[in-house]
Amino acid sequence: MELSRREKNLLQSLTTRIGRRKANCCRCEGVRAVRELLTFFPERVRFTAATERGLRTLGIGAPEVRMISEADFAAVSGTVTAQGVIAVAEIPPQAVGPVAGDFILALDQLGDPGNFGTIARSLRAAGQRELWYTKGSIDPWGDKAIRSGMGAQFGLRLRRFDTLEILARAAAAAGFGKVFLADPHEGANCFREPGLFEHSVIVIGGEPNGIIGAAPDAHRVTIPMPGGYESINAAQAATVLIFESVRRNMERT
Amino acid sequence: MELSRREKNLLQSLTTRIGRRKANCCRCEGVRAVRELLTFFPERVRFTAATERGLRTLGIGAPEVRMISEADFAAVSGTVTAQGVIAVAEIPPQAVGPVAGDFILALDQLGDPGNFGTIARSLRAAGQRELWYTKGSIDPWGDKAIRSGMGAQFGLRLRRFDTLEILARAAAAAGFGKVFLADPHEGANCFREPGLFEHSVIVIGGEPNGIIGAAPDAHRVTIPMPGGYESINAAQAATVLIFESVRRNMERT
Repeated sequence: MELSRREKNLLQSLTTRIGRRKANCCRCEGVRAVRELLTFFPERVRFTAATERGLRTLGIGAPEVRMISEADFAAVSGTVTAQGVIAVAEIPPQAVGPVAGDFILALDQLGDPGNFGTIARSLRAAGQRELWYTKGSIDPWGDKAIRSGMGAQFGLRLRRFDTLEILARAAAAAGFGKVFLADPHEGANCFREPGLFEHSVIVIGGEPNGIIGAAPDAHRVTIPMPGGYESINAAQAATVLIFESVRRNMERT
Repeated sequence: MELSRREKNLLQSLTTRIGRRKANCCRCEGVRAVRELLTFFPERVRFTAATERGLRTLGIGAPEVRMISEADFAAVSGTVTAQGVIAVAEIPPQAVGPVAGDFILALDQLGDPGNFGTIARSLRAAGQRELWYTKGSIDPWGDKAIRSGMGAQFGLRLRRFDTLEILARAAAAAGFGKVFLADPHEGANCFREPGLFEHSVIVIGGEPNGIIGAAPDAHRVTIPMPGGYESINAAQAATVLIFESVRRNMERT
């Protein structure tokens, strides 16, 4: 079946946040991201538009495939070197109910979609589930965040809050009362802080002032950098902390 | 002093690998990258071109500043949202002599400049020095690799080799004979492998076959991913391994 004009218009409209909100759908582009989506969350996929080449590279069956020419694909694609596969998927509802996992990763006003996606991948790879974020962060369902995250967003429990204080209160109410702020400059050594992943909130990118009201006993933790060069980015810092939790869990077993 | 036509042409020519090789210089764009460069490696800087706004944001003094209009800056900039500061710096010579640090990080045919730069930052932050790579990897002195690395490249000992086998031989000759291949799927648990950072080579992105001839006893190591979602990228994997070395060094002290 070929991609209809209506579907093509939908694909276009989903490049904007308003378009995504209206349709409650997002675009998931690229072979690996679509493969993840079809493997783990097939029920979310409305349709997959693909060129012949893209479908071959995808290598797995997909329901509701719409064929599209290379030229038409280039027109809807968000990338320069298009792989020829893009899916339209429903955005999962905001997570509710009990909080799962060892800790909540909280992104405070994280503006970079690549970092957001990368952090989502690390978190999902580590087997954690809760990715919370504040207003002012980028939309996790935007094109670039999904490409960077390779669809990991779909496997996480995302929750959005107006401020870090409100987020911290919701976490405390769910039994996750200990708040740690990842700080690039000072704080307890993250490799030595004992309660770091025990029903805690770990805030990445947060302004220290934002949290004080909600969690007066918030701790700063820092990743030691013996090189004296303190500029690893938010995604790297989050990845180090996330896999430190994996390491500790392994040590226990 | 204003940017001369000759300097402007140089800036343009350095966007290509051929231009960089000819001039033995590279471009270092953005406030943080230029700040790093001026702080740690001022002797490498030929000149810094900046808009008035860029110079204010930079906030530190720079020798050999060339003023440039916003419009002219936009024409030479490699970014969409230019910060108004770009330096031209000499590319350090290929590292020679004794090998420093606990391990050599080796990138095999790493094609993504963002990943290359990110790995350089992690390595430098961790206080390690040796970043080796094979032909087929991107040029570490290209615009995007430097932006992602924020100039961390200048603080590392970079060495390029034709193949992974030749790299492994050079490492062995320098006393770094143990080779570990970071494998996304199988291998020893990286958090439990005892000799991982003891005069070793850790290969990221390497094809297992490439190494066999040079290091028949090469070990695969893998980062455990309890989430069953094995797609963290090369930069994330390298960052986890690099900071595991930091953690172990701290444990010892």
